[in-house]
Amino acid sequence: MIVVMTHNVENYDIDNILRKLEKAGFQIHLSRGVERTIIGAIGDKTRLTDLNLEAMPGVEKVVPILQPYKLASRAYKSEPTIIKVGDLSIGGDTIHVMAGPCAVESWEQLLQTAQIVKEAGATLLRGGAFKPRTSPYSFQGLEEKGLEMLAEARERTGLRIVTEVMDTRTVGLVARYADILQIGTRNMSNFILLREIAWAGKPVLLKRGSSATIEEWLLAAEYILAEGNREVILCERGIRTFDDYTRNTLDLTAVPVIKYLSHLPVIVDPSHAIGKWRFVEPMSRAAIAAGADGLLIEVHPNPSEAICDGPQSLNPENFRALMQQLNDIAGLMGKQIGHLPC
Amino acid sequence: MIVVMTHNVENYDIDNILRKLEKAGFQIHLSRGVERTIIGAIGDKTRLTDLNLEAMPGVEKVVPILQPYKLASRAYKSEPTIIKVGDLSIGGDTIHVMAGPCAVESWEQLLQTAQIVKEAGATLLRGGAFKPRTSPYSFQGLEEKGLEMLAEARERTGLRIVTEVMDTRTVGLVARYADILQIGTRNMSNFILLREIAWAGKPVLLKRGSSATIEEWLLAAEYILAEGNREVILCERGIRTFDDYTRNTLDLTAVPVIKYLSHLPVIVDPSHAIGKWRFVEPMSRAAIAAGADGLLIEVHPNPSEAICDGPQSLNPENFRALMQQLNDIAGLMGKQIGHLPC
Amino acid sequence: MIVVMTHNVENYDIDNILRKLEKAGFQIHLSRGVERTIIGAIGDKTRLTDLNLEAMPGVEKVVPILQPYKLASRAYKSEPTIIKVGDLSIGGDTIHVMAGPCAVESWEQLLQTAQIVKEAGATLLRGGAFKPRTSPYSFQGLEEKGLEMLAEARERTGLRIVTEVMDTRTVGLVARYADILQIGTRNMSNFILLREIAWAGKPVLLKRGSSATIEEWLLAAEYILAEGNREVILCERGIRTFDDYTRNTLDLTAVPVIKYLSHLPVIVDPSHAIGKWRFVEPMSRAAIAAGADGLLIEVHPNPSEAICDGPQSLNPENFRALMQQLNDIAGLMGKQIGHLPC
Amino acid sequence: MIVVMTHNVENYDIDNILRKLEKAGFQIHLSRGVERTIIGAIGDKTRLTDLNLEAMPGVEKVVPILQPYKLASRAYKSEPTIIKVGDLSIGGDTIHVMAGPCAVESWEQLLQTAQIVKEAGATLLRGGAFKPRTSPYSFQGLEEKGLEMLAEARERTGLRIVTEVMDTRTVGLVARYADILQIGTRNMSNFILLREIAWAGKPVLLKRGSSATIEEWLLAAEYILAEGNREVILCERGIRTFDDYTRNTLDLTAVPVIKYLSHLPVIVDPSHAIGKWRFVEPMSRAAIAAGADGLLIEVHPNPSEAICDGPQSLNPENFRALMQQLNDIAGLMGKQIGHLPC
Repeated sequence: MIVVMTHNVENYDIDNILRKLEKAGFQIHLSRGVERTIIGAIGDKTRLTDLNLEAMPGVEKVVPILQPYKLASRAYKSEPTIIKVGDLSIGGDTIHVMAGPCAVESWEQLLQTAQIVKEAGATLLRGGAFKPRTSPYSFQGLEEKGLEMLAEARERTGLRIVTEVMDTRTVGLVARYADILQIGTRNMSNFILLREIAWAGKPVLLKRGSSATIEEWLLAAEYILAEGNREVILCERGIRTFDDYTRNTLDLTAVPVIKYLSHLPVIVDPSHAIGKWRFVEPMSRAAIAAGADGLLIEVHPNPSEAICDGPQSLNPENFRALMQQLNDIAGLMGKQIGHLPC
Repeated sequence: MIVVMTHNVENYDIDNILRKLEKAGFQIHLSRGVERTIIGAIGDKTRLTDLNLEAMPGVEKVVPILQPYKLASRAYKSEPTIIKVGDLSIGGDTIHVMAGPCAVESWEQLLQTAQIVKEAGATLLRGGAFKPRTSPYSFQGLEEKGLEMLAEARERTGLRIVTEVMDTRTVGLVARYADILQIGTRNMSNFILLREIAWAGKPVLLKRGSSATIEEWLLAAEYILAEGNREVILCERGIRTFDDYTRNTLDLTAVPVIKYLSHLPVIVDPSHAIGKWRFVEPMSRAAIAAGADGLLIEVHPNPSEAICDGPQSLNPENFRALMQQLNDIAGLMGKQIGHLPC
Repeated sequence: MIVVMTHNVENYDIDNILRKLEKAGFQIHLSRGVERTIIGAIGDKTRLTDLNLEAMPGVEKVVPILQPYKLASRAYKSEPTIIKVGDLSIGGDTIHVMAGPCAVESWEQLLQTAQIVKEAGATLLRGGAFKPRTSPYSFQGLEEKGLEMLAEARERTGLRIVTEVMDTRTVGLVARYADILQIGTRNMSNFILLREIAWAGKPVLLKRGSSATIEEWLLAAEYILAEGNREVILCERGIRTFDDYTRNTLDLTAVPVIKYLSHLPVIVDPSHAIGKWRFVEPMSRAAIAAGADGLLIEVHPNPSEAICDGPQSLNPENFRALMQQLNDIAGLMGKQIGHLPC
Repeated sequence: MIVVMTHNVENYDIDNILRKLEKAGFQIHLSRGVERTIIGAIGDKTRLTDLNLEAMPGVEKVVPILQPYKLASRAYKSEPTIIKVGDLSIGGDTIHVMAGPCAVESWEQLLQTAQIVKEAGATLLRGGAFKPRTSPYSFQGLEEKGLEMLAEARERTGLRIVTEVMDTRTVGLVARYADILQIGTRNMSNFILLREIAWAGKPVLLKRGSSATIEEWLLAAEYILAEGNREVILCERGIRTFDDYTRNTLDLTAVPVIKYLSHLPVIVDPSHAIGKWRFVEPMSRAAIAAGADGLLIEVHPNPSEAICDGPQSLNPENFRALMQQLNDIAGLMGKQIGHLPC
């Protein structure tokens, strides 16, 4: 870290900083320039925020040099992390498509969707049993009944299940049914939930907060990793910007950036990012071309009857067409689309 | 709501929309223009999101006309809501200053701060016992011990207590100690927590999410109001923008906008919004001039020793100076700064 | 357009609105609901902003229904526009790569780069002779000398030239040398320059403003089209968001969105959007997979010696590798990479 | 500046950086840590961008320490700059209100508005003769005719004139009529226009770009200052964010921040920032309470007949009421509202 002192700093203030840094075990380099004195400090980066140097007299600003996360970084682990979900491996040369409805609405809707996405080549079934909705007057999910349906759909199709956990009190419940526990975008900074979910012993799909920087997203992953759960899949799902034509702005560059900064697998959810099914197909292709390890896609047998997020759901025909295109792009990337074991 | 049909829409698709709207009890007006056919529909706005019209064939877009919240709106209740916290009234002609440290660190620190802010004219003591921290390696709060200290500080000073709840499992615990339950910015869209906190029977201070629109913020309040708890205080605390000189961009215009759209009281937290104590004083003045019902300000007896958020904390001297200025501005606004009953 | 009246609007105010709309030639539909009265008006959308309805008593808000641009829209022209630049066709089944240095620095640098990008398969040479720089102390370009070098490089290599115009006074000068006139991101809303450049009779490459919505971007194109110049190529180059890991956030979804809303060709500039060469390769692939008609890429024979934007420039080796990958992806999209005529 | 080298950097690469920095006259400090080697360099900050260190092998990132602007900084000039406009002094203890219509529409409209704002206490008349409009189909201003009317209004009322320059070719023309030349938000980064306007020898009102950081805004001012024109008034007018209730988000914190970083006067334009007249009054009060040196406010004798920006214009009655409130707040700040000399 670099501590930049104010223009007219007193020696007394500089000494205070030096003492505090030394006490905290940092190695120090002092540079006195004509315009500014700056202090370089090298040491345990994870202790930085608690040092509170910016509040000390004579300090203009503190510039962190190293990333504040550790276990999530490439420097800590240079090999890509591959996560086993049953027989499936997420994060290597195989691209997995997780597909299904926004919300579990009924057994018929779920089973029909599961069969459609399985035939088209998906390996995991997504579907919300607990739904975070902006309005208190919207449908909030079938809750445990929905989880039971998801488990039953797995039984029938072999598809693995990914579904969201919204509350610390239901982590155990959801973990009994799901193969992958999803943290939704609104809960990325719900640090207590992150800790609790880590302990459930299941892989976690961590959606990026809609206003989270990449560093904050990796720090959220660090919360889970630091509890001993090393199975975190990151999911880019759009960030909030001034532009309003699409629901959010899909930040596809986050894919190669995550690959560069971290060893964790990263997938893309174009459906929620964009909010309009029409653009899900080209952006799914683009996500794979950018290097994503997988996709999370909303599919509904009849989008115009969907209880939630119909406008962004692909119908069966469009989903099948998309899967064929992805096959070809995966090939160009030296990868293949994953399949369920026969 | 207005449903705009695509350029080349089929009559068949228009009929489908009309049937769906009629079935849902909406009153309908159809306009066939040369360029577009549009359908106006008037009815229960809270049912809108579940209708899923945008996913239906022939629909280009759906434009909501009315606000999606109801209980939080001025149309529902034109008189400003005044919230009683012991003998204090929040939301009328009295401005209340809630001050204290970011985190409860120790009994000495808390008591000292409580005495300072009380003498300077604050009526409520703020202080976190559970702390949401971006990094898992940062101090996370004293938890129940911190709550006990807050209650003890109330005992000694008469200041009322406002402190954050982060988890559904600790709502009851925090409610046993606090006078006002705070929902932090990261939890504004934690809808399950909003519901749970509503049931605790205490006033709720609802911070704006750092990427929440004003409409989303009022919908979060609606979650609490819809559960029967009508005591919600809104708190503007900065939104995330591209600008990086201050921590967030304080959206002070939200104050008169909330006053126009809603009957709920609204206060401002300049400390967290800005992140630099130097600008807390002018922006506190500005907040009162804009019409805020109160302020939430970080004060620390010795900011450079604070465990968290020292850079944005006022020291006792600066806090006292600020309180005097606020008195004058409150007077101009036809209000006064609140005081503890003797 | 829909005019939403306030809750308690007077008949008198409604009549005023109706008279104003009728006078302006709009066709009107009035709906009186229990909660609100709304007025639908259909007519010349380009006259909308001058009507100033939102300032009239009793009006709560005005909701535009149709796009405010006309000549740029798919509704106006359903066939994609193909733009001829010498023998090259931009906007059809051929993908063109425009490559070169950020700034023309010297004849040696320019010629060397031109030869490198030509051999690797680019068809147009980019390079700034006039440079918009955030700091007044940075290098501002070789000006006319740079233009001469660009023309000379075209002479030697056959590559077509694209370069930026920054001032109405130099439109004619730049047009004498360039094949495509570029409007930079900072000038997207410089409406006088847009008009002036339209008259130069050359194709225009219109970069998206870094905080422009897609609608504003198409309205900027409309300024050029409305002057009779129908040869506009749109260029996505990243938007400004809160995220700071990359210079801007590349909004790749804008590519299929533009294809849906407009007939104009759209290319992508990943170099400026991202600011780090390392991520240019994956995002170039993604741009083509998303449907872009071409790319604008910074290449420098020796990026570490570049006077400007070295960090985002590909070196010759990386550029060659990229071009090979693009070939394959273009093939999957049913397109091919353009070549110079022999 | 701090150069952070990559984890596994070669000595050879470090030496290259050191040589380049030495050659450029920088004073160097090298720190070799276990995790990273970092190089501190102190020297001419204005040469930094041309050094292009981030493109050199082995460099992870370059962290600037000092502000890239010089003449605009408090470090360069600690006393506040006071700008003389005729008998008026902008930037000291006097607050000036610049008021008038968005656009000059007619002689009657202009004269009437001028008389209204003068009587209410404004000292400068604002009004656009050249109008930047998002749509090519909107009214674009009366041009020179409008300038003549502004000059005539000055003649009649004594009010000083502030009006916008949009093109390098009309700088001289506008300067013949206006007392203060305005650079609009869309032209803040039109660096050629900034230079040209500097030479006109008149004070410049520099609006903040709607997506400009404070640093970029001060660098734009630096363009003007560096040409020898030291009379720059900064004007905060809202930044573009995700929130859409107001037109832009008024960043009032920019006022004390500018006061801290720079010696230049700073005023606030709440009308354009917010876009709704209803909120102009409270935010004008707040601007003065935050320390602004003045206000730029849209006033129209009959907002519902305005050709542009009617919804954000105050009517005469509201403007008069506002001026009285400002008087009181100015007094609290130890300032007074400026008046025209009798």
